[in-house]
Amino acid sequence: RTMYYGKGDVFVFRTYAKPLEGVKRIPESGFTGRNNVILGTNATIALKGDAFLTSFTEGDNSLIVATDSMKNFMLRHAAKYEGSTLEGFATFVCERFLETYSHIDAVEITCDEIPFDKVEVGGQSGLNESDLVYRHSRNEHATTTVEVKRTANGTEITKQTSGISQLHLIKVSGSSFYGYIKDEYTTLPEAKDRPLFIYLNLDWTYNNVIDAIGSDTSNYVPAEQIRDICATVFNDLENRSIQHLIYEIGLRALERFPQLATIGFESNNKTWEPVVEDIPGSKGQVFTEPRPPYGFQRFIVTREDLEKEGRAASGAAHTAKA
Amino acid sequence: RTMYYGKGDVFVFRTYAKPLEGVKRIPESGFTGRNNVILGTNATIALKGDAFLTSFTEGDNSLIVATDSMKNFMLRHAAKYEGSTLEGFATFVCERFLETYSHIDAVEITCDEIPFDKVEVGGQSGLNESDLVYRHSRNEHATTTVEVKRTANGTEITKQTSGISQLHLIKVSGSSFYGYIKDEYTTLPEAKDRPLFIYLNLDWTYNNVIDAIGSDTSNYVPAEQIRDICATVFNDLENRSIQHLIYEIGLRALERFPQLATIGFESNNKTWEPVVEDIPGSKGQVFTEPRPPYGFQRFIVTREDLEKEGRAASGAAHTAKA
Amino acid sequence: RTMYYGKGDVFVFRTYAKPLEGVKRIPESGFTGRNNVILGTNATIALKGDAFLTSFTEGDNSLIVATDSMKNFMLRHAAKYEGSTLEGFATFVCERFLETYSHIDAVEITCDEIPFDKVEVGGQSGLNESDLVYRHSRNEHATTTVEVKRTANGTEITKQTSGISQLHLIKVSGSSFYGYIKDEYTTLPEAKDRPLFIYLNLDWTYNNVIDAIGSDTSNYVPAEQIRDICATVFNDLENRSIQHLIYEIGLRALERFPQLATIGFESNNKTWEPVVEDIPGSKGQVFTEPRPPYGFQRFIVTREDLEKEGRAASGAAHTAKA
Amino acid sequence: RTMYYGKGDVFVFRTYAKPLEGVKRIPESGFTGRNNVILGTNATIALKGDAFLTSFTEGDNSLIVATDSMKNFMLRHAAKYEGSTLEGFATFVCERFLETYSHIDAVEITCDEIPFDKVEVGGQSGLNESDLVYRHSRNEHATTTVEVKRTANGTEITKQTSGISQLHLIKVSGSSFYGYIKDEYTTLPEAKDRPLFIYLNLDWTYNNVIDAIGSDTSNYVPAEQIRDICATVFNDLENRSIQHLIYEIGLRALERFPQLATIGFESNNKTWEPVVEDIPGSKGQVFTEPRPPYGFQRFIVTREDLEKEGRAASGAAHTAKA
Repeated sequence: RTMYYGKGDVFVFRTYAKPLEGVKRIPESGFTGRNNVILGTNATIALKGDAFLTSFTEGDNSLIVATDSMKNFMLRHAAKYEGSTLEGFATFVCERFLETYSHIDAVEITCDEIPFDKVEVGGQSGLNESDLVYRHSRNEHATTTVEVKRTANGTEITKQTSGISQLHLIKVSGSSFYGYIKDEYTTLPEAKDRPLFIYLNLDWTYNNVIDAIGSDTSNYVPAEQIRDICATVFNDLENRSIQHLIYEIGLRALERFPQLATIGFESNNKTWEPVVEDIPGSKGQVFTEPRPPYGFQRFIVTREDLEKEGRAASGAAHTAKA
Repeated sequence: RTMYYGKGDVFVFRTYAKPLEGVKRIPESGFTGRNNVILGTNATIALKGDAFLTSFTEGDNSLIVATDSMKNFMLRHAAKYEGSTLEGFATFVCERFLETYSHIDAVEITCDEIPFDKVEVGGQSGLNESDLVYRHSRNEHATTTVEVKRTANGTEITKQTSGISQLHLIKVSGSSFYGYIKDEYTTLPEAKDRPLFIYLNLDWTYNNVIDAIGSDTSNYVPAEQIRDICATVFNDLENRSIQHLIYEIGLRALERFPQLATIGFESNNKTWEPVVEDIPGSKGQVFTEPRPPYGFQRFIVTREDLEKEGRAASGAAHTAKA
Repeated sequence: RTMYYGKGDVFVFRTYAKPLEGVKRIPESGFTGRNNVILGTNATIALKGDAFLTSFTEGDNSLIVATDSMKNFMLRHAAKYEGSTLEGFATFVCERFLETYSHIDAVEITCDEIPFDKVEVGGQSGLNESDLVYRHSRNEHATTTVEVKRTANGTEITKQTSGISQLHLIKVSGSSFYGYIKDEYTTLPEAKDRPLFIYLNLDWTYNNVIDAIGSDTSNYVPAEQIRDICATVFNDLENRSIQHLIYEIGLRALERFPQLATIGFESNNKTWEPVVEDIPGSKGQVFTEPRPPYGFQRFIVTREDLEKEGRAASGAAHTAKA
Repeated sequence: RTMYYGKGDVFVFRTYAKPLEGVKRIPESGFTGRNNVILGTNATIALKGDAFLTSFTEGDNSLIVATDSMKNFMLRHAAKYEGSTLEGFATFVCERFLETYSHIDAVEITCDEIPFDKVEVGGQSGLNESDLVYRHSRNEHATTTVEVKRTANGTEITKQTSGISQLHLIKVSGSSFYGYIKDEYTTLPEAKDRPLFIYLNLDWTYNNVIDAIGSDTSNYVPAEQIRDICATVFNDLENRSIQHLIYEIGLRALERFPQLATIGFESNNKTWEPVVEDIPGSKGQVFTEPRPPYGFQRFIVTREDLEKEGRAASGAAHTAKA
C-alpha cells in the first residue's frame, strides 16, 4: 500500500568533499571535474516499511524514527561520506539507514544540488580562481533519486535516476515551427525562423547503476556534460520543433555515453512574442514575454531509438570525428 | 512509451456557470452548494498517441495540434460546458478533443481551482452577500485530474481523482508526539501538548466515476465538505501524531461518503518551535517558525481499512447521531 | 547618513493575546473584534544610531547588538506584551529596545500579520466555531510600521502607518474604461463593461498616533473594516477606472474614520482578457489571464480632499443614513 | 502630492543591440564588454503630472495614456534605441514620453536586467562561444532607475541610480564575528572563523549623470566590474562582520571609479549553521541552512568616507600596485 513518511528540505552543505576527478572529456564540453570545496544539496528522505502501519492506524509511535532524527542522521553521515557525487552520497545514506534500523524495508532519497560557482578575483598576479569565495547559483542544478530496499541477503538499489532541473536556453535564430494542423482552433502563425526559448528538465538512467553511484567515476556522467550537449545540439540543429530538438539531444547523449540506458526530457516552451520584426539598418528585433500558457513535452529516448537510427555503434567514431 | 505533449497554465474563467446544487449536507459542514458566478481554473492539458512519434523522431509536425490551439480549444469549450463542476468540465473537454482529432489516443486534463470567495458588503439593508464582488483566495483549492482514452467503441475514463491542495490548519492545543525511537540521532524533545500545524494535500477516488463527473450532483463530494471534515476531526481528536490524525480523517471521510473508494493524504508538519512556554497570568505562549526541514507523510485510506475498523456499515448511524 | 542594521523574517506567534474588543461598528462591515487566540506576525527590526558607525568603518563590534539577540529580544517581549494589536506590539518592542540599549538612537519595526482564520466544525450541537483549530490564510493581511526615536526627555513616535497588503478583489460587471487618449501607441479597445480585477495595498495614518497604538482601542481602525469598505465601495460604484475607484474608497474611509489623516493606495490591474463574450442562453462569458504587464496606480487621499468634496462634515450623517 | 500610475512587468527583449565596448579594464575583473546579442529587461514605467488629478477625482480619462499604450510605447522604442546600456535605454524612453505627451511632468523608469549568459559549444574546431545559444540566468542582475522631468527649457534627469540585485556570495573560511554585546538576550556563540554567506543588493550614483547614460561609455561602470570587486575584496579581507566587509567593498569601488559619487549596500546574512565541525582526516565540515530570520545591513559609502580614509587620491597608485 502507499505508505511512507520522511523529511524534506534537509539542507546539507559539506565542505572539502573529495573532488570529482577522472571523468572522461567529451567534445561538447570543457567539463572534466569539480573541486567539491562546497558540496551542497537540498535532500528529501522517505522511509518505507510495513512496520509503520500501526503509527497510522493506532497512533503507535514506538517504531517511528522521528523525522527530526532523520535530518540529524543525514547531516552527520555527510561527515562520513568519502565520495564525490550526490548519487554516491544518497546511496550511502540509504544504506546506513537500513543498517541502523532493522524494521525499515526501504529508503528513498532525492538530492537536489545547490550549486556554487567558481569566481575569479583580481590580485598581484592578475585574475585567479578563488579557493575561498564562491557564487551561489540559482540556475540549473543536478538532481538524483536513489531507492535502496532490504533483501533476503542484504540490500538492493531498486531505483536510480540522475538529472538536471531547470536548464533555460534560448537560440536567437535558426528554429522553425510550421506544418502543424490548421483548423478553426488555430490562431498561431507559422514561424520559419523564431527565437526558441526552452526550459528543460532531464533525467537519465544507467545500464549498470554502479557507474552512477560508485567511487570509480570513470563512467560517471556529469550533469555539466549533459548540459553542454544540450547547448551544442541546440546550436547545431536547425530544429523544426522542441520535439525534434529533444529527440536529437537524446540521441547525442546516448551516443556519447554508452553507459546510459535512457534519457528523458520535460521541456517547456517559453518563446517570446515578436513585437517589432524589422529594424532598419539592424538585424535586431524586439520581443516580449509570451502569455502565461506554455507548451510542454515529455519524452524518453532509449538505446533502441539509437539503434533504429543506426547510430548505436558509431558512437566512438562520431566522437573521434567531432 | 512515455510520450505526450500539451499546454500548462491555461487560465480559464467562466462566469455564470451552472450553480452547484443538490449536494447532500453532512454534519461536519455548512456547505451545500456554490453559485458559480466565477468558475476559475488553471488547467493543464496533455495529448497522447502513437501518431505523435514522428514529430519527435522526424520533426514532422503534420499531425501536431499546436499547443496554442489546445488552449483556444479549451477556452472556447468553456463557453459550451453546461455543468457545475471542474470534474465535469475536464471530462467534457477531454471527450471533445477525442471527437475532434481522430489520431489522438488519450487526453489527460488537470484543473486546479482558482477560488473566488463571497464577500459581504454594507448597504441600506445592512450587510449582504455581494453578487458582483468576489475575493480571489490564495488558500486551499480544489483540484481534479481526468484521463479519457479512445476505445474500440468510443471512449473510457481511465483515470479520475479529485482533491484539495494546500489546506493549512493549526490546532493550538491537544496534540502530542512522544514514544518514538530514542537513540544517538534523537534530539527532538517529546511533546505531550504541542500546537500542531499541518499542510495537507488530499486526493480521493469514487467507486463509480459518474458520481464525480456527471450532471447529477447528488453523490458528488465537494472539496469544501472534505475540508470541513479535516477541521472537525482535527478539532475532536487528541492526536498522537500526524499519521494518527490523517488516518482518522480518512476513516471519517469514507464513512461519511460511501460513494468514495479511497482517500489519500500528503501531509507536511510545519509545527512552530516554542520560545516562551510559560507566561505568568496567561495561558498564552510564544512560538516561532521552525527550521526549514519539514516532516511529511503519504498514506491512502481505503474502504478495506474502514471494514477492518468495523465502521463500514455504521456510516448512516454515525451521521444520524452526530 | 543612511546606516542601519537589523533582523528580518522574525516570526512571532503569540497565543492567547488580549482579544481585540471595543472597536466601533461601521455600516460596511460585520467586524467588531477578534479573539487573538493566535496573534501571528513576520517582523522586521532595524536599529539606528551614530554609535554603529565604527562597526562599519573599523569592524568594531563592541556596540553591536547581534541580530540574533534582536530576534530573541522581540520573541521574549511578545510574552510581555499586554495589548491586542500589532501596532501596539511594535511600539512596545521599539520602546523596550531604546530602554535597554542606551546607545541606540532609533528603532523601526514592521509587523506583517500572519492571519489565522476561524473555522467551523460540526458536533453534537450542530456547527460551531472551533476554539482550537484555525486556518492559516495566505490572503490579504494587515501590516504596520512604527519608528520610535530617543529624544532629550524620553522617546517619540516618529513614524506610524497601518495598512493592508495584497487584497485581491474582482467585480464581474459594472466597471468601464474608455475615453482615454487614442494615438499610434493605442491598441487597447475601450470597455463599457469589463470585469475589473484589482490587487490592492493600502496604508493609512492617524491624526493622533495614540489611537493607533494605545490600549484604548475605541478609535483603532481595524484592517478588516477597511477591507470591507473596499468591497462595499467597489460593489456600489460604477467605476470608470481604478483611479476613480480608489479615490472613492479613500473618501469613504476618511469619512467613516475621522481619526484618520490619510489613506494611500497602491493598486494593480489584473483584469482578465475576454475570449468568448457571448454565450447563447447565458449571461456568462469566458476570460483568460492577461499578459504579464500590469497597470498600477499610487495615490494618497487626504482630509483636504474630503473637504474639497464637501464631505468632511457629513461623515456622521452619511453613516446614519447608510 | 503622491500621485502616479504606470505599467510594471514590461518585458523587453531587444536582439542585436549595439555591443557595449570601450569600458576600462580594472584589476579585479576580466570584464571588458558584452555583445548585447540579447539585451533583456523587465521594466517599470511611471508617469507623473498634475494633469492626472482629475482621473482620480472625477474619473475623467481624457488625459490618460492607457498603461497598455505605455507598454507599446516602450516596446516600439526599443527598436529605435541605438545605445548599449539599460541606463541609456531608460533615459531615451523617458525623454520620448515627455516629447510625445506634453501634459506629462515627469517619467520614471526602472529597468531590471534579464541576463543571458554566453555558453560554450563543441564542434569541429573544439569548444567555441556560441553566437546563437544563450543561457537565461537567474543569478544576480543589473538594475537602473532614471527619472526625467520637464523643465522650463527642456528636460532634466532628476534621479539616476545603477545597481546589482541579489548577488549571492559565500566565503568558506576567513570571516569572524565576535566582540559584540553579551547580555541576557544573547545566545549566539562567537565565531573566530565562520563560512560567511551574503546576499547583496548594491546601488551607485555618478558625479556626472552623463557618464551613466551617455553613448560614450568610457566612464560607464559595468555591474559586472562592481560584482567582481565584491568577490575580490571578500576574498582578500579577513572580515570581522558584514558591516566591515561592505564598507571595504565600498571604499574599493569608489577608489577604482573616481566617476562614482556614492555606493550603497543592502546586505543579508544567510550564513549556514554548523553541524559537524570536525571531520577526522579532513578540513571539511558539515553545515545546514540557518533558521528563517536573517540579519541585514544598509549603508551608503561616499567619497567623503574615502577622503577620511586617506584613499581618495591614491586610486591610481593602488591600482598600479594591485
